Amino acid sequence: MNILLTVAYEGTVYSGWQRQKNGETVQAALETALSKLFKTEITVNGTSRTDTGVHALAQGAAFNVEKTNIPLQKMPEVINSLLPHDIVVSKAVEAPEGFNPRFNAIKKTYTYKILNQKYKNPLLRNSCWHISHLLDVAKMQEATSFFVGTYDFKAFSATGSPRSSTVRTIFDLSVCKNELENIITISVTGDGFLYNMVRIIAGTLAYVGSGKISPSSIPEIINKGERKNAGQTAPACGLTLAAVEYSGI
Amino acid sequence: MNILLTVAYEGTVYSGWQRQKNGETVQAALETALSKLFKTEITVNGTSRTDTGVHALAQGAAFNVEKTNIPLQKMPEVINSLLPHDIVVSKAVEAPEGFNPRFNAIKKTYTYKILNQKYKNPLLRNSCWHISHLLDVAKMQEATSFFVGTYDFKAFSATGSPRSSTVRTIFDLSVCKNELENIITISVTGDGFLYNMVRIIAGTLAYVGSGKISPSSIPEIINKGERKNAGQTAPACGLTLAAVEYSGI
Repeated sequence: MNILLTVAYEGTVYSGWQRQKNGETVQAALETALSKLFKTEITVNGTSRTDTGVHALAQGAAFNVEKTNIPLQKMPEVINSLLPHDIVVSKAVEAPEGFNPRFNAIKKTYTYKILNQKYKNPLLRNSCWHISHLLDVAKMQEATSFFVGTYDFKAFSATGSPRSSTVRTIFDLSVCKNELENIITISVTGDGFLYNMVRIIAGTLAYVGSGKISPSSIPEIINKGERKNAGQTAPACGLTLAAVEYSGI
Repeated sequence: MNILLTVAYEGTVYSGWQRQKNGETVQAALETALSKLFKTEITVNGTSRTDTGVHALAQGAAFNVEKTNIPLQKMPEVINSLLPHDIVVSKAVEAPEGFNPRFNAIKKTYTYKILNQKYKNPLLRNSCWHISHLLDVAKMQEATSFFVGTYDFKAFSATGSPRSSTVRTIFDLSVCKNELENIITISVTGDGFLYNMVRIIAGTLAYVGSGKISPSSIPEIINKGERKNAGQTAPACGLTLAAVEYSGI
C-alpha cells in the first residue's frame, strides 16, 4: 500500500528535509517515527528538498507498507504522537502504485514572508526576513506580472546548480501586506522551481521595493540570464512550502 | 535620568516577566544586559507581570541611570546586542521623575490568538491556542459588546487572587479571523486587567464559539460574579501584551 502524507514543519532546527549522514533532518525524524509505528524500516520520498531553516505546510512524503489496520483518517494523529512538536502530519491518503511526490508534483506554491518594520519581532524571528527600511509594496506588486509565464529562469537560480533545463513556468506571483502586523507575504505558484529560485525572486522583489531595481527591468534580467543582475538570495527562514498539487491523485 | 524602554519578547522559554529566585525570567535577562552596559547594577520596573509563556510586543521597563552618553535613539540597538534573540528593545524614551510603568499605565491592549483548523501548525505552536473544531466567529463577535464598559469582573479572575477591587473598564473588545491562515485574533483594551482576566475572556469567547455559552448570557455571567460560570482559562501561549498607554509621558 502506497501512502502519501502531508507534512508541516518548522525547519529552524533541522538541516533541511533530506536525510543525510550528519545533522538532524525532517525526513530522518519522520522515517524514525514511521519505522517505529509500522515495526519495519520505512523510507519516504519527499516532494521538495527544502533547505536548512525552510519551513513547510504541505511537504509530501510517500511510503510503502505491506498492510496496516490503522485507518487513513486516524493515521495523522497516530504518527504525530511519535513526532517532535515541530513536525506535524496533517493528512494521509492512498496513492497509486509508482506514485512519487517529487515527479508527480505539477504545481507548487511557496510563500515568502518579510517583516517590514524598524525593529525585530522576536515571535517572528524564525519565520520572517526582517527588513527595517520601508519597502514600496506597490512597486513590488508592479514587478510581479513580469515573472508570470514560461521563461528561462537561469538568472534566478544558484550559480553552479546543474540542471538539464532552466525553463520553468510561473502561474501566479502576488505580493500583499498585512498593515497591522507589517508582514509582506510573497506567494508564488509554479510547475517547479530551480535551486534557490524562490529566495532569489524574494530577494529581487525586496530590491525592487528598496528602489535598487525598477519593476520594468525584470524582463531584461530574465532575458540576460545572468545571476548577478538579480537581487540577493533572501534568507531561508522566510520561506515556506505552502501547497502542492499532484497528478494521479 | 529615568528611561522607559519598550520591550518585545517571545515568552516561551521564560518563567514569566518578573525576576525570581529560580527560573530564567525576562526581567532578569534585561537587567543583566543593562547592568553590563551601564557598568552598575540596574533594576527595572515593568508594566505587567506576564506569566510563563506569555509574550509581549510592548512591555514597559523603566530604570534609572546617573548619566549616559548613549543617545536615546541608539540605545535600543546597543541593548539588543547584549540580549538573547527572543528579547528585543524597540524604543527608549526619557520618563519623568517618579514614573512607574505599572502605576502610570492608563490603557493596555492584549491580543489573544487562536489557530482554528483541524491540524496544528508547527510554526505557530508557541504563539496560538490550537482549537481543532470550527468556532462560530459571528457568535464570538456578538458576545464582545457585553464585555465593553465598567463592570465588576470577579467572574473573570483567577479564584483566590487578592485584589482590593475587581472593577475594571474594558474600552474595546474585538474578534476577527484571518481566513487565509485560520487565525482568530481577540484584541482587548482596558484600564487594567485582573489576574488571568484576558485568558478567561478568551476561554469564554471560545466557549461561545463552540456553542457551550450563548452570547446573550455574558451579562448574567458578569453579574453573578462566579468564576465557575465563565469559560476555561485559555493557555498562556496565545497571549501577547500588545500595546500600553501611559500618563505623564
